[in-house]
Amino acid sequence: MAQKTTLKEFESVYPKLEEALLDHVKSYNLPKEQVEWFKKSLEVNPLGGKCNRGMSVPDSVSLLLEAPLTEDQYFHAATLGWMTELLQAFFLVSDDIMDSSITRRGQPCWYRQEGVGMVAINDAFMLEASIYYLLKKYFRSHPAYVDLFELFQETTFQTEVGQLTDLLTAPEDKVDLNNFSMEKYSFIVIYKTAYYSFYLPVALALHQLNLATPKNLKQAEAILIPLGEYFQIQDDYLDNFGLPEHIGKIGTDIKDNKCSWLVNQAIAIATPEQRKILEDNYGQKDDAKEAVIKKLYDDLKLKERYEAFEEKRAGELRTLIDNIDESEGLKKTVFTAFFDKIYKRSK
Amino acid sequence: MAQKTTLKEFESVYPKLEEALLDHVKSYNLPKEQVEWFKKSLEVNPLGGKCNRGMSVPDSVSLLLEAPLTEDQYFHAATLGWMTELLQAFFLVSDDIMDSSITRRGQPCWYRQEGVGMVAINDAFMLEASIYYLLKKYFRSHPAYVDLFELFQETTFQTEVGQLTDLLTAPEDKVDLNNFSMEKYSFIVIYKTAYYSFYLPVALALHQLNLATPKNLKQAEAILIPLGEYFQIQDDYLDNFGLPEHIGKIGTDIKDNKCSWLVNQAIAIATPEQRKILEDNYGQKDDAKEAVIKKLYDDLKLKERYEAFEEKRAGELRTLIDNIDESEGLKKTVFTAFFDKIYKRSK
Repeated sequence: MAQKTTLKEFESVYPKLEEALLDHVKSYNLPKEQVEWFKKSLEVNPLGGKCNRGMSVPDSVSLLLEAPLTEDQYFHAATLGWMTELLQAFFLVSDDIMDSSITRRGQPCWYRQEGVGMVAINDAFMLEASIYYLLKKYFRSHPAYVDLFELFQETTFQTEVGQLTDLLTAPEDKVDLNNFSMEKYSFIVIYKTAYYSFYLPVALALHQLNLATPKNLKQAEAILIPLGEYFQIQDDYLDNFGLPEHIGKIGTDIKDNKCSWLVNQAIAIATPEQRKILEDNYGQKDDAKEAVIKKLYDDLKLKERYEAFEEKRAGELRTLIDNIDESEGLKKTVFTAFFDKIYKRSK
Repeated sequence: MAQKTTLKEFESVYPKLEEALLDHVKSYNLPKEQVEWFKKSLEVNPLGGKCNRGMSVPDSVSLLLEAPLTEDQYFHAATLGWMTELLQAFFLVSDDIMDSSITRRGQPCWYRQEGVGMVAINDAFMLEASIYYLLKKYFRSHPAYVDLFELFQETTFQTEVGQLTDLLTAPEDKVDLNNFSMEKYSFIVIYKTAYYSFYLPVALALHQLNLATPKNLKQAEAILIPLGEYFQIQDDYLDNFGLPEHIGKIGTDIKDNKCSWLVNQAIAIATPEQRKILEDNYGQKDDAKEAVIKKLYDDLKLKERYEAFEEKRAGELRTLIDNIDESEGLKKTVFTAFFDKIYKRSK
């Protein structure tokens, strides 16, 4: 039987990876103060999250094998998982600067921590470079070494292209709803989030087991990209319609001029009068204006629209999963595991 | 006979690489505005410099072959050269933000150009990702493909480690000469500059020709790292002692609190009184204080110290070059070409 990893088990692998990275920079004779700095960045930035992306690598490997993992299999799967988390840390540290964010995971963002500032840009680079050092150290002799390397590279490029589109479409300080569209929204969500959060971990698991045939990768992508898009749409929905006690925060997408699924739906169906309301009130740091938008979302029945979308997308995904061809070693359970975590989640 | 490339010839390769990169992002259906943005970044950031690093790849390949390059050889060598320039562009765009720089190559720094701002961080990432896209496109079937991407990765990590040390040693806003030492200076110069500017282009040339034996790489590193260090020391020397009409700028290292060779020499030999003068006047945006430091450098005979250093280092390098073992295809001329461009340069 496949076995689900726990955060504790997953985190227990990290100290070994951190030590390998610190040993590496020490081998350059990096001065002590800088080693300590890198150590702190390696402890603050990739840690403290839920590690859903990272843990889905060992979970997927186990589902593909239909067996619990040996210690060695688990170590390698978790290492690939941590590389996914390092990639995310690289994005988050830099996105927080680009978005002028204040907090991350309940702490001040890294660039806002005492004495860090713009050094955080270089720290982000070093988190990215860490991926390839670990890849070389632990996968140099793996038959999929080149594929793994190229997969990380392509995923990075895709995410950056998504981030560029997001930054130019929804700058926090310049509201222009003409920039928004459902088409652009889908592009941003798929490139900025779905590839690295959903496709990457499963593709890594397939590569680890030498099951990454073109057919298997294509089938995985065909499900995980719409699944990832659905996940982000749900996130946008919960930002407004979720309960703060469930989602653990008070949504700020309206005030932050986010290119959210909700505002794009509103734009698509608004009357000229409603469009005017959107233009006069969206993306401003003003409680009253936010309340006007929230009321408009209710008037436009966006909750019901979301629920209809969710049912439709869920049905499509179930069909896609049902139709998976398992002949080259892919397993439907890999995808149902993701689907079940997402469908109708409230947090 | 080997043949030296010209900037014009080297630049003539770039449009093809740019087109390949733009075609790649268009294949993602990246919206038009974002394609235009990326195009502009690809035209502003890697272009407009002297391309010494990039051009030294085809020059080295030609010297190794002892023959002019065929069109195909030139294209591949120049592509590796442009990848070096893209790596440099990635560093410069981000360093300018980290250092709060104002201009670069006579233009406002990219992050200070109209409408760019912190999006420049993501643009830097995309310049870096471009390296690996081009590597895959043009070198996927080359026997050294894996070595090439590992070389770029390791060089990137080395440069980042050097940048971290520089940033923590010499923050522009906090002068503390206790942070400085010749040892730290050497580390910064070697890691931040010498590896990517000197070792990388020659190692790339060796890989292109499948001449990158461990012995050849080791010999190249043993010469190019002290050569690169010498180049940077010379740069620091010229910042103060060079003629503005030769070096094309007025040096600002003293005012900018740079961890320069000169200040580290001064620290090493200063009397307690002179040390006090350094502490009271270094790293401040004040013409009079700068003049005090300049006078101290003269009193300490740093010009003569530099000249003695240069003669000593030049002699060591000549011996190293003389002793090169060419039995595995390495050529002394590769190194004399670098040496002759640097020795006693005034600009």
